[in-house]
Amino acid sequence: MRIVLDGMGSDTHPGPEVEAAVQAAREFGEEIILVGDVELLKPALAAASAAPEGGIRLIHAAEVLEMADKPASSARGKAENSMAIGMDLLKSGGADAFVTAGNTGGAMANALFRLGRLRGVKRPALAPLFPVKGGRAVILDIGANAECKPEYLLQFAIMGSVYAERMLGVKSPRVGLLSNGEEASKGNELVKETYPLLAASGLNFIGSVEGKEVFGGEADVVVTDGFTGNVLLKASEAVAKLLTDLIRDELVRSPLTAIGGMLAGPAFRRVRKLMDPAEYGAVPLLGVNGLVFIGHGRSDARALVSAIRVARQAVEQDVLGAMRTGLSQT
Amino acid sequence: MRIVLDGMGSDTHPGPEVEAAVQAAREFGEEIILVGDVELLKPALAAASAAPEGGIRLIHAAEVLEMADKPASSARGKAENSMAIGMDLLKSGGADAFVTAGNTGGAMANALFRLGRLRGVKRPALAPLFPVKGGRAVILDIGANAECKPEYLLQFAIMGSVYAERMLGVKSPRVGLLSNGEEASKGNELVKETYPLLAASGLNFIGSVEGKEVFGGEADVVVTDGFTGNVLLKASEAVAKLLTDLIRDELVRSPLTAIGGMLAGPAFRRVRKLMDPAEYGAVPLLGVNGLVFIGHGRSDARALVSAIRVARQAVEQDVLGAMRTGLSQT
Repeated sequence: MRIVLDGMGSDTHPGPEVEAAVQAAREFGEEIILVGDVELLKPALAAASAAPEGGIRLIHAAEVLEMADKPASSARGKAENSMAIGMDLLKSGGADAFVTAGNTGGAMANALFRLGRLRGVKRPALAPLFPVKGGRAVILDIGANAECKPEYLLQFAIMGSVYAERMLGVKSPRVGLLSNGEEASKGNELVKETYPLLAASGLNFIGSVEGKEVFGGEADVVVTDGFTGNVLLKASEAVAKLLTDLIRDELVRSPLTAIGGMLAGPAFRRVRKLMDPAEYGAVPLLGVNGLVFIGHGRSDARALVSAIRVARQAVEQDVLGAMRTGLSQT
Repeated sequence: MRIVLDGMGSDTHPGPEVEAAVQAAREFGEEIILVGDVELLKPALAAASAAPEGGIRLIHAAEVLEMADKPASSARGKAENSMAIGMDLLKSGGADAFVTAGNTGGAMANALFRLGRLRGVKRPALAPLFPVKGGRAVILDIGANAECKPEYLLQFAIMGSVYAERMLGVKSPRVGLLSNGEEASKGNELVKETYPLLAASGLNFIGSVEGKEVFGGEADVVVTDGFTGNVLLKASEAVAKLLTDLIRDELVRSPLTAIGGMLAGPAFRRVRKLMDPAEYGAVPLLGVNGLVFIGHGRSDARALVSAIRVARQAVEQDVLGAMRTGLSQT
């Protein structure tokens, strides 16, 4: 297996990328292809690693997609950007998955331009595995499409089901439609029009779900438009942060609670880790013709290794093939 | 001041209502008007209170709006329901605010039917004060209008600003527009069309906000459509519950963390209380011609007393008068 890692993605590239490539090559025994400015990558690699790294290949990319670049125009204008070069490798069969911590819009534009969409897909969707009671659930879309049509949401449901089946090992994943009430009569126009499509889809549709069901782990796949999904995800992260900050502030208010906090430390750290985007943060762009994973710009080496781990699992599970089959059957 | 409490609202009415009326009359020294089936209320009141309650008046309502009732039709069909009778008191000037733990849809339908809208208001909005870093913020709408137009959101912003000014004591409240990114170019169509209206409104518009800013306390008023607001609110409650459940589960995994958890108990309880909907749970319906507060169906006496406290503050602060002025100036 060969996994491409965009060497120029993270805010502090290429340090985290090079470190992650070394770690991942060792840990997984797969070939990691680092794409970027080799004049930068080569010395960083030499500094990061004592031994010559057999599992790492460098490929030069003359351009970099910056955070400030406009996604669509620069994906075309900067034809030699590291994402484009990496995705071309995927397209040509020279690699199996692509991981970047770069600009999400840029990655989407490059993916659409270089890889194209899977047959029948109207809109690709960003589909993280996020933490819920008892495990993980796929939520999609969380930001690729701020404005959606019912047929897009139906496709999200199909792609999300395949992804949950393969990545979470769930047979017949439970699909919920995010709404403002559990009753079929609730929802905005989009939800009301999508509901019958999902009910007739042949998927394991469990109806409308709210926060309680989503975070209670009652659905394996949560379908929503990219605007609402994005609001949900960011609110969840912010509430988790607020709550842990509040607990920390409260703990230091008395010596006894402070001692309690210290003793309870390992429990807190496990929960913090569970809710940490770096642990589950690489988000696949489902619906494009290749396995593309996008991590946070602030990713460190650990987050990138974790992203490569997820990408590797997706290759092993033939997520792309299963998605093609799933889409053609519906 | 006279505050009407719907005696038939909560899931286990009239127990919590009667208990809350007794407590509120004692604590606040205001007249509490309990509306409902006096054959039920009278003995419950006698049982709940040792002394004759000077501060409580009973008013009979022959009908009850049940949770299963369809809001719009039953608000008309059950003309003698306890909400209708209570709101008529408000309309006639016989009371200053109305509090119910009944069906939200029923309360909204009764309010529109009995009280009508404030001049110029297209759609009333549900506007809770929810916990954020350093205090509270008003978020609206959280469910009255699943489908919204830009002009509704502009009115929500005006009403929310007045409410924040009066209830949170903030001068020139910071108004944020909930979006999927901070840039003005982000958002779904509704957000993109609303943005320039807010920018030109004369309100203290701080631009688009995401979860980080919302729960980080960077806005006093968060404006959104009722679908997205509802999803945000319910997700926040669910994440808070998931997180505290996870911490509890983790704490018992070792004797040391369990001892830590016990010592840290007071800190947890303060945080839990801060995030508890019962503490801030009575949600005003802004934009109708009267002060209407709707609590959760599962409200206990404590939650209802807390709702009455909020209603009382709204009367003292002349929220309704200020709202009329605010709406007429824009």
